[in-house]
Amino acid sequence: ASCRAASPPGTATAPPAADLVIELSQTHKAKPDLTNLVFGTVFSDHMLTIEWTSNGGWQKPHIKPFGNLSLHPACSAMHYAVQLFEGMKAYRDADDKVRLFRPMLNMNRMANSAERACLPAFDRAELVECIRRLVQVDLEWVPKSDSASLYIRPTFLGTEPSLGVKKPSRALLYVILSPVGSYFSTGAKPVSLWADSKYIRAWRGGTGDCKMGGNYGASIYAQYEAADYGCQQVLWLYGDDHQITEVGTMNMFLFWNNENGEEELATPPLDGIILPGITRQSILELTRKWGEFKVCERYLTMADLRCALKEGRVKEMFGSGTACVVSPVGRILYQGENLHIPCQDDFPQLASRLMKELTDIQHTDYSIEIHTRFISILSPLC
Amino acid sequence: ASCRAASPPGTATAPPAADLVIELSQTHKAKPDLTNLVFGTVFSDHMLTIEWTSNGGWQKPHIKPFGNLSLHPACSAMHYAVQLFEGMKAYRDADDKVRLFRPMLNMNRMANSAERACLPAFDRAELVECIRRLVQVDLEWVPKSDSASLYIRPTFLGTEPSLGVKKPSRALLYVILSPVGSYFSTGAKPVSLWADSKYIRAWRGGTGDCKMGGNYGASIYAQYEAADYGCQQVLWLYGDDHQITEVGTMNMFLFWNNENGEEELATPPLDGIILPGITRQSILELTRKWGEFKVCERYLTMADLRCALKEGRVKEMFGSGTACVVSPVGRILYQGENLHIPCQDDFPQLASRLMKELTDIQHTDYSIEIHTRFISILSPLC
Repeated sequence: ASCRAASPPGTATAPPAADLVIELSQTHKAKPDLTNLVFGTVFSDHMLTIEWTSNGGWQKPHIKPFGNLSLHPACSAMHYAVQLFEGMKAYRDADDKVRLFRPMLNMNRMANSAERACLPAFDRAELVECIRRLVQVDLEWVPKSDSASLYIRPTFLGTEPSLGVKKPSRALLYVILSPVGSYFSTGAKPVSLWADSKYIRAWRGGTGDCKMGGNYGASIYAQYEAADYGCQQVLWLYGDDHQITEVGTMNMFLFWNNENGEEELATPPLDGIILPGITRQSILELTRKWGEFKVCERYLTMADLRCALKEGRVKEMFGSGTACVVSPVGRILYQGENLHIPCQDDFPQLASRLMKELTDIQHTDYSIEIHTRFISILSPLC
Repeated sequence: ASCRAASPPGTATAPPAADLVIELSQTHKAKPDLTNLVFGTVFSDHMLTIEWTSNGGWQKPHIKPFGNLSLHPACSAMHYAVQLFEGMKAYRDADDKVRLFRPMLNMNRMANSAERACLPAFDRAELVECIRRLVQVDLEWVPKSDSASLYIRPTFLGTEPSLGVKKPSRALLYVILSPVGSYFSTGAKPVSLWADSKYIRAWRGGTGDCKMGGNYGASIYAQYEAADYGCQQVLWLYGDDHQITEVGTMNMFLFWNNENGEEELATPPLDGIILPGITRQSILELTRKWGEFKVCERYLTMADLRCALKEGRVKEMFGSGTACVVSPVGRILYQGENLHIPCQDDFPQLASRLMKELTDIQHTDYSIEIHTRFISILSPLC
């Protein structure tokens, strides 16, 4: 794999944060009303762009006014989906401190996605520093609210301006910022899922463990078929035994009494078809630290779930992700049957507790001594 | 599926060719030397663009000077690979007539890809007419050569300017033109293939039968691993029995004496993981018309191939595609063993004959009465 891992001779592997060029916007957009804000529709005043060429390596990073990109019509990101993205958030606490949540985990996953997409390597710490500077420039865009945050969207495109299917000789890494409320238009209500093996999200030998655009574009059709069946999201199955893999664009957790009668929080293992979610990892680490029940990365099939529901062994089921943090599941339509998942008072007990603990870590100094490694303090508001 | 197939009320389903707005370029680029031209690196003077919005439907098509696209940084084509493309060619014959090869087949496949990608429906005949007009404007870019042609790249992008994973409310269809020689830098020499089940191109429930960008971006990494093993392309396998599916970005044909001793041209069936190639279909139709040997869409495994090679039953193996027409296979590296495919004089007999017949149909009036449905005559050169 030498020809893929190595950078061309003489090129830098870092977008050098010290070289950052900042051009401030002359105009400032009005901040949106967060109460009815649809996810990802409003963007801040600035963006970060960094260009790369195979000959020149990484160029100077630029923070500049938010605006359209000018791209060659043969650009490989647009023909062959040589593209990937990340999702992370900045949070403001009651004391106006602004934090990123575990940004190096996003950088690590982004680097893995970049290798799989044949995009160039980059220095992860330098990129976090560039993102930190961008958030500082648009610090007023970080909402002053417990339920809201500033969503950060790093994007990485192959910008090869020719049509051969090959590793790009040019690339563009950029970051945009979007103030967000709750991801789901229904708020924190439990979601309904359509479970069917007609569409498969990811497969072994594919790219399901990378945040590459192709995984998402291929999923939209199934999402509308779920809507035809009166469901909000797809419960993605895999294999002849209908393994439960992911929920919409989220990781999946089942809290139950397992086959051996043990109280267990279970989620599918990272076997190549599961996205290694940052929230997923944080939930596993938090609940393992609590030590109150078994925490297990294991396979779960629809037969396991149906049997456990019949025997009254299911306590909760929820999705996890950066956009929603946790999202309880209320109903699954499977083989013509509605499976009802226990969901007391809309937000079940464990999901509520995780939502509160994770939000507290993200928004306040609560348990900060324990969880310092989770967060990066950006800066107090000037 | 009603909410997907139907267009929003009040919108047109056709990009109206009659409304075409033409803005001619003030400058004309020099035509390239075709002898050493790398595929898809040079573009003609003009491009076609047509915008769509969910409220306004299809807008007027524009033919305008070739240039960069201006795209919103949240554009769904760049984040979620809501994108597809087509590949077709215009050919010039000795009498300066310029033809498209079976363009409605490309339009049909493009419409299928669009439905799967949740991009809007369009009128296929109107789009062919717009493409015909574009080629007319850049008619001097259609090479005067038997071995060269003008490659036509329709591209269709979701341009939704927000980050939710959903059906785009805006889209951009555009077409660019590139004069091309031979696709492979080795010319028409037989290619070597790396056959390994480590990477899987497409799977049931995915998008392998659509020309969506995600299929291609996910394949590049494997292509470089093939290069590490001294091979030029990937032979894509599927399933535990290592079914042979595709070759690089081409369909695959095996010409052999099958298990029952019958002379047979075989290619995998269109079962959802195979791209329905226009060249594939044309080869099947041509050889069935000849009636000289059995022509069969059937499964072929690596075990079938290895056994047939041992018993001397393999005559030829080749890939097929718009870019290369046919491309013979010379060697397959599989489980550490080099399998040598018979390849007399570089270009074996059946591949040569198909190349000649298809090229003749594309470039000359030879057999035009039989094959009129294959071609669309564009216009004689003015």
